[in-house]
Amino acid sequence: MPVFLNTADAGFETAFTALLNAKREDSPDVDAVVAGIIADVRARGDAALIELTAKFDRMELTPETLAIPPGEVDAAIDRVSPEERAALELAAERIRAYHVRQMPEDARWTDPEGATLGWRWTAISAAGLYVPGGLASYPSSVLMNAIPAKVAGVERLAICVPTPGGVINPLVLLAARLAGVDEIYRIGGAQAVAALAYGTETVKPVDKITGPGNAFVAAAKRRVFGKVGIDMIAGPSEILVIADKDNDPDWIALDLMSQAEHDESAQSLLITDDAAFGQAVAAAVDKRLETLERRAIAGASWRDYGAVIVVSDLAEAATLSNRIAPEHLELCVADPEALAAQCIHAGAIFLGQWTPEAIGDYVGGPNHVLPTARSARFSSGLSVMDFLKRTTMARMTPEALRAIGPAAEALAASESLQAHGLSVTARLERLNRG
Amino acid sequence: MPVFLNTADAGFETAFTALLNAKREDSPDVDAVVAGIIADVRARGDAALIELTAKFDRMELTPETLAIPPGEVDAAIDRVSPEERAALELAAERIRAYHVRQMPEDARWTDPEGATLGWRWTAISAAGLYVPGGLASYPSSVLMNAIPAKVAGVERLAICVPTPGGVINPLVLLAARLAGVDEIYRIGGAQAVAALAYGTETVKPVDKITGPGNAFVAAAKRRVFGKVGIDMIAGPSEILVIADKDNDPDWIALDLMSQAEHDESAQSLLITDDAAFGQAVAAAVDKRLETLERRAIAGASWRDYGAVIVVSDLAEAATLSNRIAPEHLELCVADPEALAAQCIHAGAIFLGQWTPEAIGDYVGGPNHVLPTARSARFSSGLSVMDFLKRTTMARMTPEALRAIGPAAEALAASESLQAHGLSVTARLERLNRG
Repeated sequence: MPVFLNTADAGFETAFTALLNAKREDSPDVDAVVAGIIADVRARGDAALIELTAKFDRMELTPETLAIPPGEVDAAIDRVSPEERAALELAAERIRAYHVRQMPEDARWTDPEGATLGWRWTAISAAGLYVPGGLASYPSSVLMNAIPAKVAGVERLAICVPTPGGVINPLVLLAARLAGVDEIYRIGGAQAVAALAYGTETVKPVDKITGPGNAFVAAAKRRVFGKVGIDMIAGPSEILVIADKDNDPDWIALDLMSQAEHDESAQSLLITDDAAFGQAVAAAVDKRLETLERRAIAGASWRDYGAVIVVSDLAEAATLSNRIAPEHLELCVADPEALAAQCIHAGAIFLGQWTPEAIGDYVGGPNHVLPTARSARFSSGLSVMDFLKRTTMARMTPEALRAIGPAAEALAASESLQAHGLSVTARLERLNRG
Repeated sequence: MPVFLNTADAGFETAFTALLNAKREDSPDVDAVVAGIIADVRARGDAALIELTAKFDRMELTPETLAIPPGEVDAAIDRVSPEERAALELAAERIRAYHVRQMPEDARWTDPEGATLGWRWTAISAAGLYVPGGLASYPSSVLMNAIPAKVAGVERLAICVPTPGGVINPLVLLAARLAGVDEIYRIGGAQAVAALAYGTETVKPVDKITGPGNAFVAAAKRRVFGKVGIDMIAGPSEILVIADKDNDPDWIALDLMSQAEHDESAQSLLITDDAAFGQAVAAAVDKRLETLERRAIAGASWRDYGAVIVVSDLAEAATLSNRIAPEHLELCVADPEALAAQCIHAGAIFLGQWTPEAIGDYVGGPNHVLPTARSARFSSGLSVMDFLKRTTMARMTPEALRAIGPAAEALAASESLQAHGLSVTARLERLNRG
């Protein structure tokens, strides 16, 4: 049974704070191991990759077989069922259509002083995408990472995916093909991150690495950050559903379980203004847990981190939601737009009872890589912007420099940066000499 | 003397690669000390802040005097000269005008399937800005960090600035006032970062911390990352000037020295297509180094990390610039716009000989917090976006769910995430029952 809380109860604040601060992730400290792997790949390149892949993935590779050749991708893709292919194509199309709209515009203007100012967006030249192998090898994640990169204009997009024992999910290869991925390497773990960051004889280095991974991958991404860019380090998934009593308890139960089934550390929360409805949802969860394939995982998550919180009204629900800053926020209420306006910290909002969160995982269009662990207070989900960078532009005319240069001279003097000031002074003197 | 390179020389590639990989920063390993300080502030709050400030800043504070009261700010501001005040006001106005244009727009649309999609930007609720004390206490940096935060709509903006021996730069306080900063604390170092991240009795926690600092501050920011957002960890400053022979060598020399005077680890590079002009600039630098106030610092930077690189044409200059990915790129050539189009990796570009980089440090309008150490390949300077986050929005109608739900079911099945699929199936069954 999950926690049942009621804002009207005396102990609510203490219990809610405990829920907020529950440490759901206990990452093993693999930093020393990862440091060794990175140093090894930097020192020995392909030879290290091949040795580490033999050791961790039971795969004998050569420099020639590190990359999966197009023919092998084709053969794997041929094994995908027409239904799965159509579903993945629909997802790719919808994700692309959404992300194309995110492309920001350049700007350029001339101000009254005559200074021309602006900025320009350019794509990152080369990006690498880590794709976990085994159970968590999700083709949908390939689409969600690769499509924004290609929409942004990344010229070279490489994927690393471990293939333990030689096994690879053909849907992952199809997703890569649909997204326009340029290179696919069958390597994983910290060694794959090291190869992408520093390069080897076969794997050319990239400028940014994105994508989920286990504790080794996360530690490696932290270590190479600075040498290359990285995306966020994602924690266990979360959902907060705010639902009034005019919902089918079974639908809400399934929405809660669709997060809980990801991971025993996932968190599923329900806030409702109707205690009886909260009980009905909990009962529906118990019923579903009898038959769900992943009931062991979902049950543990619900038992350890789940909660039903009863509030006096929806305004109170919004206040609590803002303290939680959920990754996924589902608003199953009569006027979800009004409630959404009050929920200012959330990675993604799903409006109304016809929008189960799972739609967003696959085919909605928005990205499913979202900020976890309350980081929606200060960060955003993956987007086209993550594969672009902005260069600011400024161009002075002699008149503009005459107008604003003296202020720069004054401030440089106040900061004791003489050469800064002189670089303006020398030009102004020329102007004053005429 | 700095390095002189010529792309026509046999050893060029080796020498240029060495220049690119020169390790200019050797941060002391202060991580253990910083971990202790953070733990202390978390455990003892104000008491720890007060003790650490007495120890490091020789200041006896009480919980009541941790914050600088408005009256004390007023008194300090009164000591600022009218000329400095006017310069700072002009800078603030121009920085605000530039950053206001960066505000991104929300989007919402309905697609052919009936799904309403979009995104919404909201401001980070509370931000903290670290301002170094002593020599590097730059009022311009206060404006560059605080104005974007306030333009974004950050409600609560707190500054921490150490005041060793009680001394504070009144211009820093004026800059904070002009930018609309809400709280100012006279604390510094890792303890200030810890207070902003975790809160104490007096300092309420914030959601994101930005601003430059020494090795202790940088290590503390790395440690609290995740609990709060942080901006980039900036390295030593850099400039690349690409100049043809139709420039005054003295101007270019001053532009190079305006970076070199920041720090012995700063890097100033000149690329020119005219070897004689390169020699003339080097001679002009030597002449200026005879009298510059900060000649010891600037001279060391130029000697150890400076370079003059002679190329055969400007296309080659652009190619090298893209490998350098400079923080500041000054284009003193006949057609700077054409050259800028080829320089795709740079934090900020200064176009033409009337745009010395120092203009950008103070009054140009664009931000002077920019990516260093080649990170312009994958990241951007500080902007309004750093104080905003995006929430994606999705709303299905029954028709939309009927159209795209089956694809979600298929993909959930292929990823063995049964509850994901069932959350869609349960709704589609209701629709099919009519």
